[in-house]
Amino acid sequence: MSKLSLSIAMSLDGYVAGPDQSDENPLGIGGMNLHEWFFPLKAFREMHGEDGGEVNASSAVVEERWANIGATIMGRNMFGPVRGPWPDESWRGWWGEDPPYHHPVFVLTHHAREPLEMQGGTTFHFVSDGIESALAQAKDAARGLDVSLAGGASVVNQYLAARLVDEIDVSIVPLILGAGARLFRGLDRGTLKLKQVRVVDAPGVTHIKYEVS
Amino acid sequence: MSKLSLSIAMSLDGYVAGPDQSDENPLGIGGMNLHEWFFPLKAFREMHGEDGGEVNASSAVVEERWANIGATIMGRNMFGPVRGPWPDESWRGWWGEDPPYHHPVFVLTHHAREPLEMQGGTTFHFVSDGIESALAQAKDAARGLDVSLAGGASVVNQYLAARLVDEIDVSIVPLILGAGARLFRGLDRGTLKLKQVRVVDAPGVTHIKYEVS
Repeated sequence: MSKLSLSIAMSLDGYVAGPDQSDENPLGIGGMNLHEWFFPLKAFREMHGEDGGEVNASSAVVEERWANIGATIMGRNMFGPVRGPWPDESWRGWWGEDPPYHHPVFVLTHHAREPLEMQGGTTFHFVSDGIESALAQAKDAARGLDVSLAGGASVVNQYLAARLVDEIDVSIVPLILGAGARLFRGLDRGTLKLKQVRVVDAPGVTHIKYEVS
Repeated sequence: MSKLSLSIAMSLDGYVAGPDQSDENPLGIGGMNLHEWFFPLKAFREMHGEDGGEVNASSAVVEERWANIGATIMGRNMFGPVRGPWPDESWRGWWGEDPPYHHPVFVLTHHAREPLEMQGGTTFHFVSDGIESALAQAKDAARGLDVSLAGGASVVNQYLAARLVDEIDVSIVPLILGAGARLFRGLDRGTLKLKQVRVVDAPGVTHIKYEVS
């Protein structure tokens, strides 16, 4: 069975992005600091075609997260800063012509758009008929592999509330953001049953994985 | 130097107590579940004069937390369900005549009251002139040992915002409470600089300790 897996970095006070997201601050003010543990890694540098980098306890976690993924789902704000109807086809994502996904990516939006085929195996598909449709399409496209739920908080919280997420791997970062996009906001008590299945103590971050039922 | 140490259990969505705290639900609805990892431990049972119990990865964490503590600070709602002026002296805490503290406990309240000497070395002192006064009195009473900040969220968040807490040991519980008293609420970005210093993977809980500067 193909699973829907959420891997996400969260501040100790529960935010996955800072406030005031913009073209200059795609992750909001302070949000980029959520990923400081990730940037020095060899695995991160390789994704961006660079040599060198560290191998530490986070490396195996990152590899494990990417190993079995055949498709990705994300919200429209994670794809780009454009809001409302697409003025044209010029925005092609934050990641350049060869995005680091290398598989089909389903972008949730209220505004239909033709699929966008990039280099290296990434194609962006724009889904305007809801989260369940996006999940069905992503599972189909993943061909037996798992589906990654990439963010942001709004889309993730919708999938969590609908009980469609099978596992949560949260990277807890020693940081207080104070405001922004809060993970788990709006969930009712008991919506999710969580079982802690793996903890990794890594430099500047703790990775905790939960099975959801 | 005597430190102010916060040790607290928090749900994955950031709550340290559930909603609707009352005499029957001192930790709010669902709040007792935050401590399910603690109740089976030998260390917990010993505190309550009972035999038996488990020893697991949480045991050393609990011992470490209690080892060097000479005084405790808590909010008035953690001491009891009485609100407003004390009607009389009859409420003597949730813990019976021999509370598990065995050292001076400073209770923050707007309503003065005479100290309350219990069995086993616990004396409750009622402090009505603010958090800094309570901390100074607690450090004095601790005679060189550390001071424990016990809760609840309102008092803890006041100490955090005032940058008076030296270390945070948070026990992250695989639970969504959805509402209640949220730790770290109201803090501004950058108020606290956190350094992750210790992670323990234990049954049903992850204990992460941070140094604060």
